[in-house]
Amino acid sequence: MLVAPGGNFLARQARLRDSLTAAALDALVVSSLPNIAYLTGLFASTAVLIFATNEVWLLVDARYLDGASARQAALEGLKVSLIGSGGSFEESIAAVVGAYQTDRIGIEASHMTVRAHQDLERRMVSAGSRPGLVATDGLVERLRAVKDPWELGRLRDAAGRLSDVAKCIIPKALAGMRERDMAGIIEAELRRVGFDRPAFDTIVAAGSNSAVPHHRAGDRQLAAGDLVVLDFGGMLDGYAVDLSRTITIGRASTRARRILNDVVAAQQAAFDAVRPGRPAPEVDEAARRVLEQAGLGEAFSHGTGHGLGLEVHERPRITRSRPGLPVEPLEAGMVFTLEPGAYVAGWGGVRIEDDVVVTPAGAEWLTDVPRLM
Amino acid sequence: MLVAPGGNFLARQARLRDSLTAAALDALVVSSLPNIAYLTGLFASTAVLIFATNEVWLLVDARYLDGASARQAALEGLKVSLIGSGGSFEESIAAVVGAYQTDRIGIEASHMTVRAHQDLERRMVSAGSRPGLVATDGLVERLRAVKDPWELGRLRDAAGRLSDVAKCIIPKALAGMRERDMAGIIEAELRRVGFDRPAFDTIVAAGSNSAVPHHRAGDRQLAAGDLVVLDFGGMLDGYAVDLSRTITIGRASTRARRILNDVVAAQQAAFDAVRPGRPAPEVDEAARRVLEQAGLGEAFSHGTGHGLGLEVHERPRITRSRPGLPVEPLEAGMVFTLEPGAYVAGWGGVRIEDDVVVTPAGAEWLTDVPRLM
Repeated sequence: MLVAPGGNFLARQARLRDSLTAAALDALVVSSLPNIAYLTGLFASTAVLIFATNEVWLLVDARYLDGASARQAALEGLKVSLIGSGGSFEESIAAVVGAYQTDRIGIEASHMTVRAHQDLERRMVSAGSRPGLVATDGLVERLRAVKDPWELGRLRDAAGRLSDVAKCIIPKALAGMRERDMAGIIEAELRRVGFDRPAFDTIVAAGSNSAVPHHRAGDRQLAAGDLVVLDFGGMLDGYAVDLSRTITIGRASTRARRILNDVVAAQQAAFDAVRPGRPAPEVDEAARRVLEQAGLGEAFSHGTGHGLGLEVHERPRITRSRPGLPVEPLEAGMVFTLEPGAYVAGWGGVRIEDDVVVTPAGAEWLTDVPRLM
Repeated sequence: MLVAPGGNFLARQARLRDSLTAAALDALVVSSLPNIAYLTGLFASTAVLIFATNEVWLLVDARYLDGASARQAALEGLKVSLIGSGGSFEESIAAVVGAYQTDRIGIEASHMTVRAHQDLERRMVSAGSRPGLVATDGLVERLRAVKDPWELGRLRDAAGRLSDVAKCIIPKALAGMRERDMAGIIEAELRRVGFDRPAFDTIVAAGSNSAVPHHRAGDRQLAAGDLVVLDFGGMLDGYAVDLSRTITIGRASTRARRILNDVVAAQQAAFDAVRPGRPAPEVDEAARRVLEQAGLGEAFSHGTGHGLGLEVHERPRITRSRPGLPVEPLEAGMVFTLEPGAYVAGWGGVRIEDDVVVTPAGAEWLTDVPRLM
């Protein structure tokens, strides 16, 4: 597994330090595992990071301490104090933050459970430290939304491989095959080209199943005339890419061809709307307008895209603006999907999805596969 | 996907109602998705269940309402009020529980985030209802630990298929193959025998990698003389099964053969210790004693097993007793792994894992594959 150079982690940590200063926090308890991977290069199944403005502690299960030490030592210049925790993480966190006589310690409110929060406060109180835990949201996620050049390199590589997978597997979809057989072919090919694992449960949705955006892959057989939505992704070096194509088994009906063309046009309109500074909802609006004009406004029942990175769904959200949700202006270096779709219950659906990066001038496709095959 | 008959869900709900009464709660907000699947048969990627003693509400994303309705209607006798949520779940929860002028509403403290908790309390206060949310832990998980006959049927079926996978793939491990190639063979076979997906990232750990219990599958080639730990599992109809074997490439060394035999003996000792009423740590202790007597006490660096069901790691924990953790007595109908191991850093490791069910008289193996091949 490739890991970014130590300097990249130092730069990310410097940006987080600035965010903490701006929020008047002395430290942040980082519970989100992707956030920990982003800041330290450690991909762990359990860990907690205590990120103070002057020191960084990484709590890992005592059994994983040796492995974590070796990985950290490989990252030049990165100073993270590793603590092997034999008991509860909250006990170790309380011991570390107890040294700070401050009530300006942030927690990640969307990633810490009520139980962990209660345990931590109780232990801090009984250790005689001030229990001031400040609920924060998205401090690290906001940094993650803009990829550094190393990350862009990994995503570009991964998107290229995913395009190869698409080109290889689409001709293999044949009448009589079950959805789950096709999913197996896709996942074998993902592994063959080097992905560590699928980024999510592969979707193969045939016939009327294609009208259900969140269908997985079942026992239905692909049949002549079916629309088939193929939606698959892979994780490479910790980074997720995601691609969908909708194919027809045999000859496409006139109606299917029209909807396919409309969705491709909507995706192109979204792409054309991407540029730094533009609010993300305007990109969604561009795709939505095309489909509304084609009479498919109601049929487009989800957002236009989602950020890609250490998670397969992350910032930015390319969706309609919603009251209470802050509007995110796009920035160069953001990577996300553009995946408009149209779904007609009982008949079928179409989704076309590619990955793009925001450039100083607009956008660039990362995936490269013919839209209609 | 097979789903239990409606009557099973009614029985599970009746048991939870008893638990709520015992805890003096009027309702429980269920955030854990496996817990929701257990109580309603709905496998959703986002949902919240409000389980009151006299009524049950299921909040789902408005886009999934139709599918959820159809699935619920198929479960005879099950009365769950479906609510499609267009905005935040907390808004919908507050609206439902606001009708209860009570401060006895439980939340799942280990599954609800601090953010959701704060949002919910704020909305309840501004709606004029009493904000009494009671932190609870494990109310549903404790019920899930004892499987009903339908669940045992699914787990028995799944364990049989997983045994078939093991017998099929073990002869395919050859020198020169990379760990990740072997993982691909295993995952293709999982799918071929009918699993919906792997239960976790397949582990293929060759040579010195086999000494790292949490190694995944990388680029290392299998070589003559290697110990290779194969640890894989599958999800079938929502239920997880899990199996490990350790094989040797070519002829096993005397040392490898001895450790393999010791681990098999430890697993048998654990099996012989299983019976209803016995504290789970005593099963761990039985395996540990065998390895300690073989001089491998330090080398056995993890617990002996974990419960299997809607999650691949659930109750009961078959581990050493730890201060602060309640000791769980085994009950007939519990299903868990027995997976002792021994790991020698830099040299190699062994893990042998099978799935068992607690019977009135003792235990029964669910998986059936020769221990040494």
